[in-house]
This record gives sequence, C-alpha cells and structure tokens, in this order.
Amino acid sequence: MRAVRLHEYHKRPVVEDVPEPKVGGPLDVLVEIGGAGLCRTDLHIVEGQWAEKSGVALPYTIGHENAGWVREVGSAVATVEPGDAVILHPLVTCGLCRACRAGDDVHCADSKFPGIDTDGGMAELLLTNVRSVIRLDPSLRPADVAALADAGLTAYHAVRKAVPLLHPGTQVVVIGAGGLGHIGVQCLAAMTAAEIVVVDRSPDALELAEELGATRTVRADGGQVDAVADLTGGKGAHVVLDFVGEQGTEAEGVAMLRRAGSYFVIGYGGHVDIPTIDIISKEINVVGNLVGSYNDLDELMALAAQGKVSLHTTVYPLEAVNDAMDDLDGGRLRGRGILVPTRS
Amino acid sequence: MRAVRLHEYHKRPVVEDVPEPKVGGPLDVLVEIGGAGLCRTDLHIVEGQWAEKSGVALPYTIGHENAGWVREVGSAVATVEPGDAVILHPLVTCGLCRACRAGDDVHCADSKFPGIDTDGGMAELLLTNVRSVIRLDPSLRPADVAALADAGLTAYHAVRKAVPLLHPGTQVVVIGAGGLGHIGVQCLAAMTAAEIVVVDRSPDALELAEELGATRTVRADGGQVDAVADLTGGKGAHVVLDFVGEQGTEAEGVAMLRRAGSYFVIGYGGHVDIPTIDIISKEINVVGNLVGSYNDLDELMALAAQGKVSLHTTVYPLEAVNDAMDDLDGGRLRGRGILVPTRS
Amino acid sequence: MRAVRLHEYHKRPVVEDVPEPKVGGPLDVLVEIGGAGLCRTDLHIVEGQWAEKSGVALPYTIGHENAGWVREVGSAVATVEPGDAVILHPLVTCGLCRACRAGDDVHCADSKFPGIDTDGGMAELLLTNVRSVIRLDPSLRPADVAALADAGLTAYHAVRKAVPLLHPGTQVVVIGAGGLGHIGVQCLAAMTAAEIVVVDRSPDALELAEELGATRTVRADGGQVDAVADLTGGKGAHVVLDFVGEQGTEAEGVAMLRRAGSYFVIGYGGHVDIPTIDIISKEINVVGNLVGSYNDLDELMALAAQGKVSLHTTVYPLEAVNDAMDDLDGGRLRGRGILVPTRS
Amino acid sequence: MRAVRLHEYHKRPVVEDVPEPKVGGPLDVLVEIGGAGLCRTDLHIVEGQWAEKSGVALPYTIGHENAGWVREVGSAVATVEPGDAVILHPLVTCGLCRACRAGDDVHCADSKFPGIDTDGGMAELLLTNVRSVIRLDPSLRPADVAALADAGLTAYHAVRKAVPLLHPGTQVVVIGAGGLGHIGVQCLAAMTAAEIVVVDRSPDALELAEELGATRTVRADGGQVDAVADLTGGKGAHVVLDFVGEQGTEAEGVAMLRRAGSYFVIGYGGHVDIPTIDIISKEINVVGNLVGSYNDLDELMALAAQGKVSLHTTVYPLEAVNDAMDDLDGGRLRGRGILVPTRS
Repeated sequence: MRAVRLHEYHKRPVVEDVPEPKVGGPLDVLVEIGGAGLCRTDLHIVEGQWAEKSGVALPYTIGHENAGWVREVGSAVATVEPGDAVILHPLVTCGLCRACRAGDDVHCADSKFPGIDTDGGMAELLLTNVRSVIRLDPSLRPADVAALADAGLTAYHAVRKAVPLLHPGTQVVVIGAGGLGHIGVQCLAAMTAAEIVVVDRSPDALELAEELGATRTVRADGGQVDAVADLTGGKGAHVVLDFVGEQGTEAEGVAMLRRAGSYFVIGYGGHVDIPTIDIISKEINVVGNLVGSYNDLDELMALAAQGKVSLHTTVYPLEAVNDAMDDLDGGRLRGRGILVPTRS
Repeated sequence: MRAVRLHEYHKRPVVEDVPEPKVGGPLDVLVEIGGAGLCRTDLHIVEGQWAEKSGVALPYTIGHENAGWVREVGSAVATVEPGDAVILHPLVTCGLCRACRAGDDVHCADSKFPGIDTDGGMAELLLTNVRSVIRLDPSLRPADVAALADAGLTAYHAVRKAVPLLHPGTQVVVIGAGGLGHIGVQCLAAMTAAEIVVVDRSPDALELAEELGATRTVRADGGQVDAVADLTGGKGAHVVLDFVGEQGTEAEGVAMLRRAGSYFVIGYGGHVDIPTIDIISKEINVVGNLVGSYNDLDELMALAAQGKVSLHTTVYPLEAVNDAMDDLDGGRLRGRGILVPTRS
Repeated sequence: MRAVRLHEYHKRPVVEDVPEPKVGGPLDVLVEIGGAGLCRTDLHIVEGQWAEKSGVALPYTIGHENAGWVREVGSAVATVEPGDAVILHPLVTCGLCRACRAGDDVHCADSKFPGIDTDGGMAELLLTNVRSVIRLDPSLRPADVAALADAGLTAYHAVRKAVPLLHPGTQVVVIGAGGLGHIGVQCLAAMTAAEIVVVDRSPDALELAEELGATRTVRADGGQVDAVADLTGGKGAHVVLDFVGEQGTEAEGVAMLRRAGSYFVIGYGGHVDIPTIDIISKEINVVGNLVGSYNDLDELMALAAQGKVSLHTTVYPLEAVNDAMDDLDGGRLRGRGILVPTRS
Repeated sequence: MRAVRLHEYHKRPVVEDVPEPKVGGPLDVLVEIGGAGLCRTDLHIVEGQWAEKSGVALPYTIGHENAGWVREVGSAVATVEPGDAVILHPLVTCGLCRACRAGDDVHCADSKFPGIDTDGGMAELLLTNVRSVIRLDPSLRPADVAALADAGLTAYHAVRKAVPLLHPGTQVVVIGAGGLGHIGVQCLAAMTAAEIVVVDRSPDALELAEELGATRTVRADGGQVDAVADLTGGKGAHVVLDFVGEQGTEAEGVAMLRRAGSYFVIGYGGHVDIPTIDIISKEINVVGNLVGSYNDLDELMALAAQGKVSLHTTVYPLEAVNDAMDDLDGGRLRGRGILVPTRS
C-alpha cells in the first residue's frame, strides 16, 4: 500500500509502497483510512523536535488524526465490523490501569501513539486496536471529522473541564481562534450559556469566531487585557482558555482572571510565571490540558452528528503530502488539511 | 480599655487605653477577647509591608485571630447572646454578593479585615458583626482555638479542597510542617485515608508531624524530590500542599507531582514558574488557596471539638505583646503565641 | 394602595384599599409592583389547602411571583436604589445560617414566603428585604419576567442540578411541557447538548416544546414508556425530569430510566413507590427539587437577558384578579397570567 | 479438582471432582482459590431465587467472593504473574463500553458474574480474566480479604459516594451493623470526620460498631426515628445509609433525613414509598447502590492494607460447605464464613 514515510529528520517524507499491515491479535482492527489530518505537529516531527521524546525508529509512517472504515477485525472484536465508518482515538491504551478504568485513559500507564511513536494513518491502511475505534453516526464522513481526532479532541477536553465553572452569567475568554480555538468556541456555545469573549490577532479569525458563537471579540493589538477588563466590569473572566500558550498570552491570560478564576493552558511554547502571593491572594487556578479521553471523543462525535461542531477542511490526495505541508508551513492552508488515499 | 496600637510603621506597637467600642448597628456584636493569636503577619504589619495594601489609618489596633465571649449584641441579632463563647471569622462580609451567597465569602465584594484594615482583637473588646461569629462547643476555650481563626482556617480550607482528590491509595505531600502545615496534617488525617508524606527541614517538626498523623516524613536536605519519587514508586504524588511557597519549594512541589496531579499553593513569597509544555504534557494543576470561608471555620471547629485538631500555644498577657513579638521573631516561641487581656 | 386580599378561605379574594407598607428596618426595600404572576398555588390558597401549612392570619395579600421597581430603601441598603427594575426571590432569608451561606438559601433556617405566609405582591407595593432583590438587565421588563420568580426558578433549579449528568450523547426526558416544563426545555437547550425528549398529553404543548428546543416529542397516550425505550435504543434515558409528579408519571418516569439514571421529582401530588431491589439493581437515583436559590434566579435572569428563556404571558389589571383566576381555573388562560396594578 | 456444585435448586450443593479449568484466551488468568466468602446470596441461589435472573445452566460452581494466588496467565497478560496473591472483582467486564471506560464498570454492557451466572470460586481453581484481578499488598492474605470482594465492596461503594456529603459537623446514620454495615462504619471512620450514628436491633452489633468507630449507637426498638431526631437537634441526618432496606427501615430511613438529606439504599427486600410532596418540600434524594467498581475494590484494598478495614471470619474447609451454610442459616456463624480448599 501507499504510505507517507519519514526516513530521515529534516528531510521531506516520501510517499512509497510498504507491505499492508495484517490483523494478528484477537483485538486488532484494520482500518482503511478515509482521511488523515495534517497538523503542525507533523512539521515538528519532520524537523526532529519529537525524535528524542518519541524514540521512534525511522523510517515510519506519520499521521495521528485518523478516520476511515473497518476492513477486518481480530477474533475477539465484537463492537465493530467490516464496513463500519470509524474515527480513531489518537492513543492505543491498555484498558487495565487505573487511569484507563477511570475515564482518564490519556494518562494510560502503557499506551502507544500511532503517527508519533509507531506507524500512523497517512497511508491506505492503519492497524489499531479495538479500544481506539468509535463508530461514526451515519451522517458523518471520515474525511470530514478526521481532524477532530486530535486537535478537536484537545479543544473539547478543555471545554468539558471548564463547563462546571461556566453557569449562566459567567464570562469565558478564548485566546486564539485558530485550529483548536474555533472548535473550542463551538463547544462552548453548544454546552454553556456563558458569554464567550474571543481574543485573536486576526480579524478574519474573529469574524469566524462570531459566526461560530462568540458573544464578543477582541483584537489582540496590545490592549486586550484592558479590553477584557472593560467587558467584565473590571472584574475579569471566570475562565480563560489559552489556545496559544506562548508569546505573552501566558501572562495576559492570568491577568484577565477574576478572583477565584481559572486559567486553562492548552497551547504551549511559553512559561507560566506567577508570584505565589498573586496565586493565593486572588485564589486563582492554573489548569493543564492534554488531549481528551476516548469518552470525550465519543461525546465530540455526538456534537458533530448534531451539527454543532464542524471543521473547515482542504482535501489533498495522499501523494500530495508535501504540497499540503508546504501550504501549511506557508500559511496558505485554509482550515485543516486532510490527506485522502486514492483507491483504485 | 487596653489595646495594642500601632502608631507608626517600623516602631513597636504600644499597649494603651482607648475608648471601648459600642454596639451601634442592629447587627453588631461586641466581643470580650479571650485570646488573640500572634502571627508572622503581625510582624510584617509593623514592618510596613501591608501599609499600602491595607490602606489603614494609624494608629489602629492589630490582632486578626480572635476568640472570646459575646458581651452585647445589636437589636437584630438572634443567633448569639451575651455570654456565648465564640470564635470570629477573620473577615466581616456583606452577605449579599454572589460570593457570600455561594459559600465563598472570602471573595466577598465588600469586606473588612479586622486587625489588618480596621481595629482588631489585641484588646479587651472587639466590635464585629453577627456574620462573623461562630458559637463554640462547650468543650472549647477561646484562648485555645483563637489561632485557628486564620492560620488554622487557611490550612483547613486547602485540605478541604484537596479531599476529593485523595481517595484511599493516593499520596499527598505536605511541604512545611510549621504553624499551618501541622494543622494541615491533622486535617488530612481526620478527613482522608491518603498516605501523608511530610517534608520539612526540621527534625523536630517531622517528629511532631508523625505524632499528628504523617505516614512518612522526609528531611528537606536537598534530596526531597528524589525521596518523594522513591516513596511513590517513581510516579509522584497526587497532591502537593505547599505551606512554604518560596525558597525553591515552588519548583520542588511541582516536580513531586504525578501525571494529572495538583500543586496547592498556600505559603507565599516565591514564584511558580513552569513551561507550558510541562503543564500540558503532565496535565497538572496549580491551585491557589486563600483563607477559608465561614462554613469552613464552622467545620474546623467541629474537628476541634472532636479533638481531631489541636494547637500548641504559649500564652502571654496582652501587656507583654512586644515580648511575644520578640520571641516569635527570635524563634523562641513554641507553638502559636496567644495574647490574653487581664481582667480586673 | 390597592391590594388583592384574602379574607376567608373558600371565598373570592377582594381588591381593596390597604395602608401602604413603609420602610422600617435598615435592610428593607419597598418595591412598586410591575407584575405579579398568577399561579395554580393561588387557587389552592383560596381553597384553604395551604391554611395549616402557612399558618397565615387572614386577611392578607397574596402574590408570590413578583417584579417591579424599587421605590425606597432602608438606611443600610447599598446594592439597589430607587428606580431600579428588580425581580424578587420568592423567599426572604436570614443570610446567617449554613444553608444561606452555602448557596442553598431555599433551606434557610428562618425564612418568610411573601404571598404565602406574609403579605405578597398582588398590590401596588411590596415591602421586602435587600436579600431578595435582583436588579434586572435593562432589556427586561418586570411584567415579562415576574412569573420566572417562582415557576421558572423551580424549573431552572432542577435543570441546573441535572446539567452535570447531561454530557453530549445523553438523553433527557421532560414529562409535562406546561408552565414549568416549557421553561425547563428552554434551560436544557441553553445549557446542554443533550437530546431532549418531551412527553405530554397535549399536541399543542408538544408543538411549543419543539419550537423551544425539544429534539423529540412523545404523545402521552399510554405508550410513552415504550416510546422512550425506542428512542433510547432500549436503554432508557440518563435523566427524567418529571414536572407532573402524579397520575402515574411517578412510575412511568422511573421506568424510563437507564441503569444509573436519575429521576428528578418536580411536580407533585402522587407517590414514588419503588421496590428497593429495583433501586439497587439498576442503581438509580430519585432527586427531589424545590424552588431555586437566589443565585439560581440571578442565573435565570442572565438567560432571560440573553433571550434564551422567555414566557408567554397574558396581562390582567390587578382589579381583574378574579377574572384571571376564573380563566386559569377554566383552562382559558394561555401562558402565565400576570396581574399589573394601574397607576394613576 | 474439588468444587462446590449446585445440581438442582432446593437441594444441597455437592462437593465433587470436576475437570480443572484451563487458560485458553490471551487475557485469561487461572487463580488458585485461597478463600471464597459464603454469603446469604448463596443460600438464595440454592433456594432458586436467582434461577430466572441468572439463567445459569445447572450444574455449576457457586462462590462469588474470591481471592487466591495466580497459577497461570494467558499470553497477553502483563499485569500479574504466577504466584501473585490476588483478590477478584466480582464481575468480569468488557473494558470497551462507556461504563467500563468511565470508572463505572459495574454497569458494563457485557459482563459475567462468576458464582452467579457462570462457574465461581468455591473450588480449587477459578478461571477469570485479567480485568478482574487486583494484586494484594504483601500484608494481606487471600482468605482474610475474600469477603471484601462483594459484601465489603458494596459497603465501600456506598460510603465512597456519600463522602462528599459528609464534611465535619455532619451526621450519618448507618441502619444495620451486620456484615455490610460494619464494613461501612469502618469506611466512614477512615474517610470522614462525620458523626456516625449506628442503628441496629442487636446490642452485640452495636457494641462492635462502637469499637469500629461509631460515635453513637441507637437500639432499634421502635423509638429509633425519635432517637435520631434527638441526636440531631431535631433536624435529622445529612445522610442515611440503609443496609437493611426492608421491614420498615425504608420508611424510617427517610424519616431520619434532614432537609436536603440523602437516603442511600443498599439492603433490599422492601419498598421505598414516599409522597412526591415530601420529596420536593424537603428536597431529599434517594440514592441506589450496587456493588463497587474495580477501582473501588482497589481503594478498599488500600484501606485493608492500612489496617483500617478488617473482617471477622470463620474458616471452613471447602468440603464442609454445607455445615457452613447451616451455620449461616441458623445464625450460628460469627463474622463471614470463608471456604478454603485443602491442598495436598
């Protein structure tokens, strides 16, 4: 089959023929890829930023946001069958540790991450495990939802954790209305009646945010902390969801909080640096957010099936992976890039 | 009446005669002080560290950890009567804002803080409001519990917030087993079955912690992060309660966390500084903690009445306030210092 | 002033002149009534059903869903001022007991209920307490929201408690889409992405429910339990909100639950009768619901100001109270009846 | 191997030779039984009360509270190895449904219940699945903890759910201090500082309850509702845990509740029958409780290893199963009966 393989860091991945993976174990599921999302992390992988962390042996197949159709299942698989349209949770987890049993499988004691530390989904087929597959509602097509498997899931997870803090009359600030942030806005609008204030540098992103449910938008032109103060009667926001997490948003996000408010870190790259006196005197919280759980993805698919969350996508044939990467790197890619294998 | 008055910053407070406060409003409560706790904050007040923050006009009476007996009540007061032994919540709150109505009166939109920004309890009498008084169980004496009103309440509040994270089989690290920390250990032992690991520089403090319920103790000699790793099978603790919050404990506390763990900031003076990548990849939380609510203090008094929380105290006559301050400053004060007015 | 007075049980209330109430205490608030909701409870009061429970001395003024404008305030009132449009929480609470301090003021240890056990709002003026008033958003008019003060608040409160159980992908059944139920549907649509299944006998009520956000509707024609089973894949609903609570809905509501589901009792009149073996083997919950707290009403007003919750009302002049009661009793009143005093 | 087999309902089970079970699947775990708890449910099984519900084909091996040592594991099992001492969660669950993934595996969509609907543990060997085994702390012996696997786990689970309601100063009533109840008392004492009021007919049971942590005991002699009212200042208890659930405790338990209190149903046999007006006017809850989850059992084992929960047991050789049953039925069995296979 055709697959996007990385042979050497700092060199372009190659689309080439590799042997098809086979169902071996009783819980294996072989999936025909219908779409694999392209993500900035893929650029970082090529640049070698993940080399040490993942420890993956080259060459290997990238692609960590995957959806498609089940082709074949192992002998013990009863929850899906060939032909089912599915989306894949990004992790393959053990199911036995406390975290897996407690709805917190992202902290599985023994997981694999296809596309990062083992063969991923930019290929015609992906071999995964029954624990990772979620059957899609008939209204959803794999290529349309693939990018929800990681980027969307991360945004959903953070919003889900923030919902109990966001009763009617509260205010939530979303910093960064890009790939993850604009999913976050849709999730907030679907699950809360909070006032949603979106902060971004780009007028286009803010316009999109308004269409997706933002109550107010603020241009990040240096005056955004003051603008949020004005919009919140000088008190600050109950929750700040920071989808950027670098270049100053870490300090700005904390400065936008009201007393007893919570700053959710989702984007990364910078530092959170706060005097302990400020943490205690305002009694604020800093909340880390990783990708969501399997159950989170299941819930996000419910929102997608209801039409409450959708993604802008640009489709590329699998063979054009490097064009897609160039477009992403060059800022020419509108929405998420989705790689789709050609079937003969 | 006699009162401890601060006339000028950087000068010793003076014990002098002042007019007795009178019940004026319908919700006023006049309390005969049975004991006023002496706290490091009092030293900081004298040093002028709170001058700007409190904006208090000098001279004024210090003392923010107060208990005693009701002498007289306003016309609309029905919940206490003269003769009742009471402890006072440190804040006088409005009772009308959302925070006050939501059990979060520490974030009251319009509060006073006797001993900090208005006349406090190092005196024969303190005038407060019905919203601040809690009747004591007959088994408790004001002088014995006064210091629970602020220091103890802060420790209780943090533990109370941590309890839902501390099911049997979890591990909690207490950094600093001093005035607040040793109350924290007692609260943890009373309300959870978690393994309590106490970290302190002082062998005496660790010995006391063991008597009070610590499961394990670790000498803070530079190897404490490794020691906690060893005690937690290399995984780290579910919760770290940092009663120090400076001099490196901020980084050590975070380093002691397991995945999805929570670092509670209680002590202050330093900085929390964490790369956002570490916050999200371990999905950790930083939780600020201020003093507890009125209901928290009521619960802490229930623990005190059950004999589950107690304080070591050293009693000084009110007139000896400067001796007590010298002893505190010089490290000669064992337990909390309590100032008791002499009654003729 | 003119007021609707009940002089004798089983006789019609009389509209007559009574002395104007005066601001006496420092926390008093005198309100010019802009609208007082008429409720089936008012009929029950006239019928004497509340005589024993309320213990009120006749004659007195009825009306327990009130909104208007502040005319005068006591000396210690700082949160509202004359001219402010306000809605009144149905209870006048003490603000000092644990319940009041914990956001649970409905369980206040010492409360009054104007219109039930003391003079209410079917009058030109109502004297209440600062603890009960909520300032309205400029977009809201007292007569439009008055009926949210009790009926709407009860529905909101139940939904608010159910929200944590209603993540995307769950199903909630609303039994009874009348006065309270149709507010419940709007609250569910505003705060959750759950599938909302509405069950009612009346096709008109179901049609309205669909406009307000119901995902599915089921005619209560005897097959409603089976219909819910069909709509939930045979598993039952996660939550059932029973706004009827009599005439068989108590058993039907429980029968509609899935394993670990929760049945919320809001309407009343009947009995919940379940074998303990069924309670434990399905591990279900029965959740009682009273009217909401002050903070709940504040949140409901936020939803109303956003246009997410609204009421159909029919306005009557205060003098026409008996016409309004006849219309309500005779089933001719569309939406909620609102009594409005005529001002000269 | 020797096993306790039920051949016909209403006849005594027989101890006879059956073929040893073999590890077949990759996730199988074969356990040498160290102790199998005898439970009243076993008597009910023999009486045919479970025949229809379980649908099990006779003959089969009973015994649903099992602990022992791993003898052999399937090819994919990595979390335990031969020789490990283990306790078995009573259910064998799928690990794939939402409930299993959410820490709620008791509501698994596809589970087996050894000893009820498939061969159980009153035998030399039991074949189970890796999902059910929990490694024991070295301080614990299988025969000592076996009965915690179901009876103890049920009590723990209910207490665990009640803990968030039981802050210091609250009161919890335990109805029935028998097999489950006396574990419940120990769990409450380990995890809360609530006042524990135990109600039972037997003075011996009350005496034991006091030793295990009860604050107060009440003889169930007809005056128990009044006695609880007296002990709670006329307000009632915050939580009632009913380990009986029949013969009137259902009504008494509800009558013991304070406003906004919660009645936990654990024992069964009777009916909960409450007017809806009472449910809403006091805003009370009825909470069903099934056996606990795998994670619950893991936590209970942590309490057992700390010495905070222990069981009185009487050991019988496996061959004496009918003596043990007779003793249980005749009220002569003190503590839980544990059947232990003889090894040659």
